[in-house]
Amino acid sequence: LAHYKVILAYDGTEFRGFQRQAGARTVQDVLERALRELGWQGRAILAAGRTDTGVHASGQVIAFELDWRHSPDNLQDALNANLPADVAAIHVQPALAAFHPRYDALARRYRYRIYCQAARNPLLERYAWRVWPAPDAELVEAAASQLVGRHDFAAFGAPPRAGGSTVRTVFEAGWQTEGEGWAFEIVADAFLYHMVRRIVYLLAVIGQARLPAKTMLEVLESGRAEGVQGLAPAQGLALVEVVYTPKACQFELSGDDERG
Amino acid sequence: LAHYKVILAYDGTEFRGFQRQAGARTVQDVLERALRELGWQGRAILAAGRTDTGVHASGQVIAFELDWRHSPDNLQDALNANLPADVAAIHVQPALAAFHPRYDALARRYRYRIYCQAARNPLLERYAWRVWPAPDAELVEAAASQLVGRHDFAAFGAPPRAGGSTVRTVFEAGWQTEGEGWAFEIVADAFLYHMVRRIVYLLAVIGQARLPAKTMLEVLESGRAEGVQGLAPAQGLALVEVVYTPKACQFELSGDDERG
Repeated sequence: LAHYKVILAYDGTEFRGFQRQAGARTVQDVLERALRELGWQGRAILAAGRTDTGVHASGQVIAFELDWRHSPDNLQDALNANLPADVAAIHVQPALAAFHPRYDALARRYRYRIYCQAARNPLLERYAWRVWPAPDAELVEAAASQLVGRHDFAAFGAPPRAGGSTVRTVFEAGWQTEGEGWAFEIVADAFLYHMVRRIVYLLAVIGQARLPAKTMLEVLESGRAEGVQGLAPAQGLALVEVVYTPKACQFELSGDDERG
Repeated sequence: LAHYKVILAYDGTEFRGFQRQAGARTVQDVLERALRELGWQGRAILAAGRTDTGVHASGQVIAFELDWRHSPDNLQDALNANLPADVAAIHVQPALAAFHPRYDALARRYRYRIYCQAARNPLLERYAWRVWPAPDAELVEAAASQLVGRHDFAAFGAPPRAGGSTVRTVFEAGWQTEGEGWAFEIVADAFLYHMVRRIVYLLAVIGQARLPAKTMLEVLESGRAEGVQGLAPAQGLALVEVVYTPKACQFELSGDDERG
């Protein structure tokens, strides 16, 4: 049995999130079905992050072990042939047996897209949130930059386990124009449940001058978000990258790319 | 009864094209249903172009007459409230009674998106065609520029009526990078059936050096496309703009924006 790391892209619209659950179509479920077609007999694949219902990914990372006698590229093709149209393996590589996509991750990058138009636009709405009136670009950028650093993000979400720490380190946070809208990107060591969507909601409200600019710092310092709570919708969010140390997930193939 | 010009955006994925047909979900069908909710009693709305099954639009133009006692903005809101999530009115304005969205159009602009990645990408595939190996940017741009001018496009499609002219004038044709892919834009006085998708297919084949660069000129000059026929898939295509003379569709509101 060899171990593999796979980077996945999926359109979250038709999934009840990543994690397997009875009676629901989830990304984990369709992946495990596809792997079983290739002879996989494991109990569960490992994944970097459990994206919510409706959240997309272009850089989700999973790992599993499999008895596969051909190349990783060939495994990618076989997987994609067995996956539905809304999920695809975009990169497949061998991994160390000890590789764990969640525990070994150094950082995650999420992207949240918004568009600013007076009426809803069916061609943008699947992957972006309509924010109108348009936020002020300087206000949202200034508020985003205050997220960078080590903070208690208790006001922005719950920890994975009750009583767990709500302190996280944000390495990058900022906006850029993208196509017909804007994209907010944030990189942190880890995220609380709903953290990105709560942050984006508050950024939009500050950008529209419905709350003063100082609100972001106040919320970060107090750990409380009374009166400023809200959740940007799932469809704007995508997990775009999970960062590892090179040695955590890779080994040299020493020329025998084709096994068996 | 007042006349209105409406610019529409729609995601073509779930439609059997624009034009009404028995037993199929079409854009015209859902529009006329929405208008009937507002008291419209016409026989058929007029449209600039009959997009095919799966083709999108961000600039389709329709016209109709309606007894409406409020402002055009208010009509836009009412229409959007009655339209499904995959169609929206993005602009509503009064029009002259004589305005005809098809006959009065001076030009149409279509955009065709491609992306060049080794594996399919579920987040791009809804609005773009995957072309792999990636075409050469200079080859596709050079071939596109040869389309500009007045040519017989017989090799690229059928006229709307049997025996009709296949001569069209292309005002602009070129490529630009866009997001994670490329977009081909073409502006012409009018288009033959399937013309853009046949052009894009040939551009891709030339860009991949599967046919020599001179093929485009040969096809344009001979009017024949034996051995080079193929159709780029519908989901990459969008009708993005229809151009009119200002006076064809507009009149001054002279301050009485609110009627009645």
